[in-house]
Amino acid sequence: MPAILSRVAPRTFTVGSRLMASAARLETVPREEIHKEYDRKKTFYHKDLEIHLANPEQLKTKPLDPTKLKFGHTYADYMMTCDWDATSGWHHPKIEPIGELKIHPGAKVLHYASELFEGMKAYRGVDNKIRMFRPEMNMARMKRTAIRAALPDFDSEEMINVLTEMLRLDQEWVPNSDVCSLYMRPTLIGTDPTLGVGCATEAKMFVITGPVGAYYSTGFQPVSLLADSRFIRAFPGGVGAYKMGCNYAPTIWVGKEAASKNCQQVLWLYGENEDLTEVGTMNIFLFWKNEEGDMELITPPLHRGLILPGVTRDSLLELGREWGEYKVTERTLNMQEVKKALAEKRLYEMFGSGTACVVSPVGKILYHNKVTDEYEELHIPTMSSKHGVMQKFYNTINDIQYGRLIKDGWMRDI
Amino acid sequence: MPAILSRVAPRTFTVGSRLMASAARLETVPREEIHKEYDRKKTFYHKDLEIHLANPEQLKTKPLDPTKLKFGHTYADYMMTCDWDATSGWHHPKIEPIGELKIHPGAKVLHYASELFEGMKAYRGVDNKIRMFRPEMNMARMKRTAIRAALPDFDSEEMINVLTEMLRLDQEWVPNSDVCSLYMRPTLIGTDPTLGVGCATEAKMFVITGPVGAYYSTGFQPVSLLADSRFIRAFPGGVGAYKMGCNYAPTIWVGKEAASKNCQQVLWLYGENEDLTEVGTMNIFLFWKNEEGDMELITPPLHRGLILPGVTRDSLLELGREWGEYKVTERTLNMQEVKKALAEKRLYEMFGSGTACVVSPVGKILYHNKVTDEYEELHIPTMSSKHGVMQKFYNTINDIQYGRLIKDGWMRDI
Repeated sequence: MPAILSRVAPRTFTVGSRLMASAARLETVPREEIHKEYDRKKTFYHKDLEIHLANPEQLKTKPLDPTKLKFGHTYADYMMTCDWDATSGWHHPKIEPIGELKIHPGAKVLHYASELFEGMKAYRGVDNKIRMFRPEMNMARMKRTAIRAALPDFDSEEMINVLTEMLRLDQEWVPNSDVCSLYMRPTLIGTDPTLGVGCATEAKMFVITGPVGAYYSTGFQPVSLLADSRFIRAFPGGVGAYKMGCNYAPTIWVGKEAASKNCQQVLWLYGENEDLTEVGTMNIFLFWKNEEGDMELITPPLHRGLILPGVTRDSLLELGREWGEYKVTERTLNMQEVKKALAEKRLYEMFGSGTACVVSPVGKILYHNKVTDEYEELHIPTMSSKHGVMQKFYNTINDIQYGRLIKDGWMRDI
Repeated sequence: MPAILSRVAPRTFTVGSRLMASAARLETVPREEIHKEYDRKKTFYHKDLEIHLANPEQLKTKPLDPTKLKFGHTYADYMMTCDWDATSGWHHPKIEPIGELKIHPGAKVLHYASELFEGMKAYRGVDNKIRMFRPEMNMARMKRTAIRAALPDFDSEEMINVLTEMLRLDQEWVPNSDVCSLYMRPTLIGTDPTLGVGCATEAKMFVITGPVGAYYSTGFQPVSLLADSRFIRAFPGGVGAYKMGCNYAPTIWVGKEAASKNCQQVLWLYGENEDLTEVGTMNIFLFWKNEEGDMELITPPLHRGLILPGVTRDSLLELGREWGEYKVTERTLNMQEVKKALAEKRLYEMFGSGTACVVSPVGKILYHNKVTDEYEELHIPTMSSKHGVMQKFYNTINDIQYGRLIKDGWMRDI
């Protein structure tokens, strides 16, 4: 006999109670699932999720034309928060209307950059289903980063289930457009109000989301890069391979320097030989004919800890290897090699890869020659390449993200 | 004729109105002082300061024994806040009862470590006067750091005047003890709720303060240091010379590593030769007989951008040079030199310097030998040194800070 449910839906409920109600009604959810052992020292739990529904007046008006939205300026209606303390572990995760966080002015995040984040997206497919792109990759990186940042660990699948609930609540915010998406920003901060430099004893996980518009509303826009080895993003023995907030603050002033020289991004070089590492906040790829005469896709390797292991980077490498149309190589690559290849007309394409844009073509490098102390303009023929390597990556990833093409295990339905 | 003032003091007032009242009453404050030109794009102003007095029930109980206080766990009654935005510049600074800040979850400080701080102290002298130690040094560093962090600049003297008002309000929190002090933490964060990595368009300056106890309640405690060149604090082309929050987050996990090896601090090495750079969050000093046979105080130089220009570091160098008892040298110094000097019994003292402790003696280095991949214990005879170099610095700085000794221009009365 199904239980009689109240006709008036409660404004606040937990996922556990919904599972219980659902089990009582349908007798399909195994009760063990609901009652299995907790270890709140290890993770928070999806079934503990408390959902606080917004009042109608708290819901915001959705943008008329999502393609025009600037990145990171518009937020959806809900946020997720989950507190942690060293004594009791994770508290119940909550989804509630987005609002300001109350943070003690002595909180570690405000002084010692005790913080990390992820950037990921949900897409409304051509079949109107909403899917996340490889969320387990982002969660695996977030867990690695949490350990390096001395912030608490959690379970990937519990988090993905919580993200799924957020997307269900805010599904109207996932744009109905195959050039837009809903950006998701899971964030973890140290919050205890004590000024000693040390492990956080309190922390807060939160997730905010927001629709983002077309990155390329008028076709690909090639970017100009400032390449100046006097500015360093990451170094061996540091945290460049982790998505910690501390990697970004020092780059903002360098970005201003780049802008003052009409460059949109910084090409981050490292070391005596000026190895290419990243571009802006993206990974970097080259497509060229190497000195042995092979057509080759190349990107810097992860082993020195200078490179953020990007989800798009990994996806391009996997697709490139699957297609088998050219060599796919992860190796250190320096400015002299780039200049030589350009001079010999062997460099066809250079592009950044990242969640925001998928790929971003490079049109020019403004290179500070450290020997002469002069700037050299290097023109990169990406936009006139006949090989279409970047374009094929862009099309394929987009087809997968919007459900026009199936790639096993990459898209996660909500 | 003096103006008749209300007998009931207002709970909220501005410093400007107080100056006006004072001018009307005493005819001593020149009215030009009050009405001089504003440029809120350049700085906030002391005369705009709004003071919101606490209700009696908001005032906290002061600790019975301040010497027992743990660093950074106890806060005084008031905080200062001052908002900034790119359009209108600085708003009015406010002093109000300490409380949680409301921060949007998309604020730059929570994602990209858009943050910086200072650490400084006020002391109650043996004459019962309250003084700050070289506050203009901290403010000069904070301004340099703000520029590097792409956060707004301000005027040092306006800030020192605001700090002075805070100290007057919270003067009962400045411990009546010549081993305790009131720690002050000016902080500047980027607050605009937009997720693009770029210059903050909104920011908040805030200051919190709190009494701190005796660093050495039972005499000097020598520390053990983990020295392992696989962990790097700062690098040329980075921001190690600035007091940005991003320099601290990566060190927390390394500190855990050190603690797991029974070391209290990390000796930060840099580069192929394993140059000594800093110790924990302190600068490092050695006192030795150099290879030429000179008695010499030595600390690493600032020019490579690897070293935070510490106020205590600067003070020790100035005192050491003034005394003229030994050579005082800023130069790069590496682990091999330290080991050689130890073996030849020429190394007498090694100590950290910083605001919290003034000086902190080093008793042991646990050195990871990168060639053998083994750990070597190096015993540093600081505690048994007959030269008393560290001890004299400690005594002198303490005498200056607590008003027993005058050093022109170092102490600022409130």
